[in-house]
Amino acid sequence: MNMPENDKQSLSMVTCTAPVNIAVIKYWGKRDEDLILPINSSLSVTLHQDQLKTTTTVACSRNFQQDRIWLNGKEEDISNPRLQSCLQEIRRFSRKRRNTGDSTSDVSGVSHKVHICSVNNFPTAAGLASSASGYACLVYTLSQLFGVESEQLSAVARQGSGSACRSLYGGFVQWKLGEQLDGKDSLAEQVESESYWPELRVLTLVVSAEQKSVGSTSGMHASVETSQLLKYRADVVVPSRMEEMIRVIRERDFPAFGELTMKDSNQFHAICLDTYPPIFYLNNTSHRIISLVHRYNQYYGETRVAYTFDAGPNAVIYTLQDHLSEFVQVVRHFFPPEVSGEEFVKGLPVCSADLSEELKRDINMEPTPKGIRYIISTKVIRGQCHTEAV
Amino acid sequence: MNMPENDKQSLSMVTCTAPVNIAVIKYWGKRDEDLILPINSSLSVTLHQDQLKTTTTVACSRNFQQDRIWLNGKEEDISNPRLQSCLQEIRRFSRKRRNTGDSTSDVSGVSHKVHICSVNNFPTAAGLASSASGYACLVYTLSQLFGVESEQLSAVARQGSGSACRSLYGGFVQWKLGEQLDGKDSLAEQVESESYWPELRVLTLVVSAEQKSVGSTSGMHASVETSQLLKYRADVVVPSRMEEMIRVIRERDFPAFGELTMKDSNQFHAICLDTYPPIFYLNNTSHRIISLVHRYNQYYGETRVAYTFDAGPNAVIYTLQDHLSEFVQVVRHFFPPEVSGEEFVKGLPVCSADLSEELKRDINMEPTPKGIRYIISTKVIRGQCHTEAV
Repeated sequence: MNMPENDKQSLSMVTCTAPVNIAVIKYWGKRDEDLILPINSSLSVTLHQDQLKTTTTVACSRNFQQDRIWLNGKEEDISNPRLQSCLQEIRRFSRKRRNTGDSTSDVSGVSHKVHICSVNNFPTAAGLASSASGYACLVYTLSQLFGVESEQLSAVARQGSGSACRSLYGGFVQWKLGEQLDGKDSLAEQVESESYWPELRVLTLVVSAEQKSVGSTSGMHASVETSQLLKYRADVVVPSRMEEMIRVIRERDFPAFGELTMKDSNQFHAICLDTYPPIFYLNNTSHRIISLVHRYNQYYGETRVAYTFDAGPNAVIYTLQDHLSEFVQVVRHFFPPEVSGEEFVKGLPVCSADLSEELKRDINMEPTPKGIRYIISTKVIRGQCHTEAV
Repeated sequence: MNMPENDKQSLSMVTCTAPVNIAVIKYWGKRDEDLILPINSSLSVTLHQDQLKTTTTVACSRNFQQDRIWLNGKEEDISNPRLQSCLQEIRRFSRKRRNTGDSTSDVSGVSHKVHICSVNNFPTAAGLASSASGYACLVYTLSQLFGVESEQLSAVARQGSGSACRSLYGGFVQWKLGEQLDGKDSLAEQVESESYWPELRVLTLVVSAEQKSVGSTSGMHASVETSQLLKYRADVVVPSRMEEMIRVIRERDFPAFGELTMKDSNQFHAICLDTYPPIFYLNNTSHRIISLVHRYNQYYGETRVAYTFDAGPNAVIYTLQDHLSEFVQVVRHFFPPEVSGEEFVKGLPVCSADLSEELKRDINMEPTPKGIRYIISTKVIRGQCHTEAV
């Protein structure tokens, strides 16, 4: 921890990191666009930061003339309303704390302007939503600099990007819908910690995308406006799925966890198709990955591998340690990578495995060369935000 | 009409034709698999037979040892339960009529075996559902041979293939859900005749398909078993859409007709995605056609063209005569056909049209060479089943 000493220094600076989370019960649709209040609860798994994280440095100084922000080295417009919401809210909490004399740290920097630098350790081209880890990291870093209590961060991060509130915790995290109009009870909380299910493994299959798709903010707005099925999903389907998902995680029941994860991903993309005009995030390669997963599971007569897709064509695969190396080999067989390209499996090492002829024959799919650009192999533990040692 | 003279002849033979219909409110899901009773009403447009029809010849003779059937020149298994249902039902009605002395024609042939030959004038590879026109034609032809009244045919054709009951009528046809357990009120009826909206035009865009998809019978079974959204669609969404669709057809309101047609196609495919494992009928080319239609309509600020997709990747396009030639040119521009291949536009001739640079620029899509194999151009009039003059 490297907290600001006091405002006599010309510059105070903190660097923190935050993880990516991948929802297994999807968030799609807001009931309040300003406060970012969702129409249904959601649940996600927070990924290990070694492979996927945002790192944010915030500096504050009485010498800074204005707030500024750089994302991956490029200056962005600080007047973005969501950035402004986060900055204002953190400063408000900090002042409130100072005024009530609660603060243990010197927070006089709250009156100074900030410079924010944020970088991801994964390529933007990977198509992984960076807004969740990005806003979680921003809000967490600001809180460290300005001395804001952690229980207040969920609501602030949510106002940056809804799913950011889930990236504040490691392990299995739910974002509860809440009931209050001001959103004070629409918060993330940990369901189980990062060490609860250590065998769980996560693969991101980065697909070659041909075209840019609709952004998730405008996509979910269009769905709320036009999909007749979405209200039924939010009001009737998701509440029971949330209960079931929490139960199967607590029981570490992978087949049930995997099946429900796949069903909810499919239903989210069904809602996108029911939107007018329809939104397509899955492409032919995504369809083939889905087909491969079902055929693989069918071969073994049990759900050993599960897919989920966010607002893009990339698959995130959940599986258990025991099945990881074989499934990676299956992916390599049916999506032969470019021979002379970059390494195919990045992140945590995956052992090689032999595939039986029977398995290959039973799956019975034409290989799709270069359909998948690369795989990022990761897991669940040690996920939550933390301050970088300097 | 060439009716059998009497059973002294060694062979009686009738040839009839039946049209294809394309649903604008989709049928997807049965509440009774044996009687083929749907979970929701549906509505379709019957297409002109010059381009798309089934022709069936049924011969009966006391010399035939058994019932037999040939589809497109290849003998098929007559023990297929749906074929058996149709044969049994038609014979039952014929005997009943004979026993009550209602019949005007000599129906003694009903005790003889039949030989059935059925051919389509469109390639199977076109991916157009041939079961609707096929069963409609079979049942109609049998009824001509055996003297069964036309009001009884809807329920018989329905037991061959649900949507076949809609192919018994020309123009705009609804298949009413019905309420009775025995299905006696689950029947097709004409909403408006084939001459009601003469400007309506229909294009079938035959897409290059890579893989065979799930058949509609097993697909809808899987949806009924696993899609949580389907029940809501059937119980809540479709009833109001049926009312709206009938209203906009009666008002010949193309923009409203087109928008509702597209929404219902999208919702049907959304249900397929919500099925477990998910079913994909649309491929990347289908997605691009959808995108093209929306961009074209957006350019004009009104819905001039509408798509609908059945259980496959081919698009059926509805438009009005005035916009036909320009839209065909748009398709030709964004899906450049093979230069030395077969003719691109089959069926009713389409005038050539020039596209403005502004339109091409505004649509702003990369052309997809050879994505569409050919177009079948047709319209709505003169659709219902009829007996061929010999």
